[in-house]
Amino acid sequence: MTHQDELKQLVGKAAVQFIEDGMTVGLGTGSTVKFMIDALGERVSKEHLSIVGVPTSDRTREHANSLGIPTKSLDQVDHIDLTIDGADQIDRNYQGIKGGGGAHLLEKVVAINSEQNMWIVDESKMVDKLGSFPLPVEVVPYGSRQLFERLAAKGYNPVFRTNGDQRFTTDSKNYVIDLHLEQIDHPRDLALELDQMTGIIEHGLFLDLVNTVIVGHENGPEVIHAR
Amino acid sequence: MTHQDELKQLVGKAAVQFIEDGMTVGLGTGSTVKFMIDALGERVSKEHLSIVGVPTSDRTREHANSLGIPTKSLDQVDHIDLTIDGADQIDRNYQGIKGGGGAHLLEKVVAINSEQNMWIVDESKMVDKLGSFPLPVEVVPYGSRQLFERLAAKGYNPVFRTNGDQRFTTDSKNYVIDLHLEQIDHPRDLALELDQMTGIIEHGLFLDLVNTVIVGHENGPEVIHAR
Repeated sequence: MTHQDELKQLVGKAAVQFIEDGMTVGLGTGSTVKFMIDALGERVSKEHLSIVGVPTSDRTREHANSLGIPTKSLDQVDHIDLTIDGADQIDRNYQGIKGGGGAHLLEKVVAINSEQNMWIVDESKMVDKLGSFPLPVEVVPYGSRQLFERLAAKGYNPVFRTNGDQRFTTDSKNYVIDLHLEQIDHPRDLALELDQMTGIIEHGLFLDLVNTVIVGHENGPEVIHAR
Repeated sequence: MTHQDELKQLVGKAAVQFIEDGMTVGLGTGSTVKFMIDALGERVSKEHLSIVGVPTSDRTREHANSLGIPTKSLDQVDHIDLTIDGADQIDRNYQGIKGGGGAHLLEKVVAINSEQNMWIVDESKMVDKLGSFPLPVEVVPYGSRQLFERLAAKGYNPVFRTNGDQRFTTDSKNYVIDLHLEQIDHPRDLALELDQMTGIIEHGLFLDLVNTVIVGHENGPEVIHAR
């Protein structure tokens, strides 16, 4: 295991200490989340925790099930107590960008239906202002050329995400446009503007959503109570 | 032809007088629009008008092509000069509800990319306030149960649209929830609220979009310059 992976493993172990018997737990996707699920599997096995996982991807579902963590889809549960997910960038006000993997629509649906949200990240994700990570926007294919031009005219430096020679498509068969903004001074204003644009299904700004952030540092995980 | 159809035919004929040689014309869908396309086909044939239609449905495309009206998809045109479509309800400020046919997402994409929009309706669609026609909302299937509950908690009387025993699905494989609101006092506030709700792809409020309304009355079509 690399040193980087050791740090992620420590973050994952710290995160699962917040999971209690009987909880319904949203399970995100990503490399740090993978270590968290390993640690959760260990707790389920050793402590006979009775929990239900709500995975945000097939990959996470398969990994959880292989460790004996039962899973249900969002439509099968009444509520989610806590969702643990990664993030692509988190600013000093604990606002985030997600969607580097193209799954921010489902991740946001799970997040807004969770009583508590926790993000687990390495310290490279913590920034003063959001924006150096391109902001993903999931868009309806029909009219996406015109939408792209509209975003370009606003100076948002849009780039269609590709997958080899093809346009990248999400699980819902939509396109992703990444906005290369460099710096987002007013995340709320931008979110509101994008929310109102026809053809945009969901953007990757996750605002006022996270309650706890666990950051992997060289000297160990730091637990931050954001809100 | 029924008397009702005669009135629709007169509205359709009035509408196509606004189409000029060389225009790119958005073509809506619906029974009144069908008569408009008939009238347009006649002008194209008799006057050798050179126009391009951008249809909002397969049905409209086939009908237009059968009359010798060439069509292109939105992604193939630089702009649309004028779009002529129907509406389910239009209020005294010329704000509208569309989506009774479940196609309001594509219809809105075409509308916002049109320099001018015209709605052609019979007089039963003209109301003081919107809302007696249920407001269609296209939603992501994932988490739609929770979204439905959220809309119910707001008092919006949501009903999943069905197609026989099945959930109705749009061309984009999404669900439609109809909001039985009875009366919409503040369409802009409602639109903004729905725009910001995760899981809602597009609602059927078409605000500040229509420029010209042609209403079919007993005594003939009335042309209204809305904005």
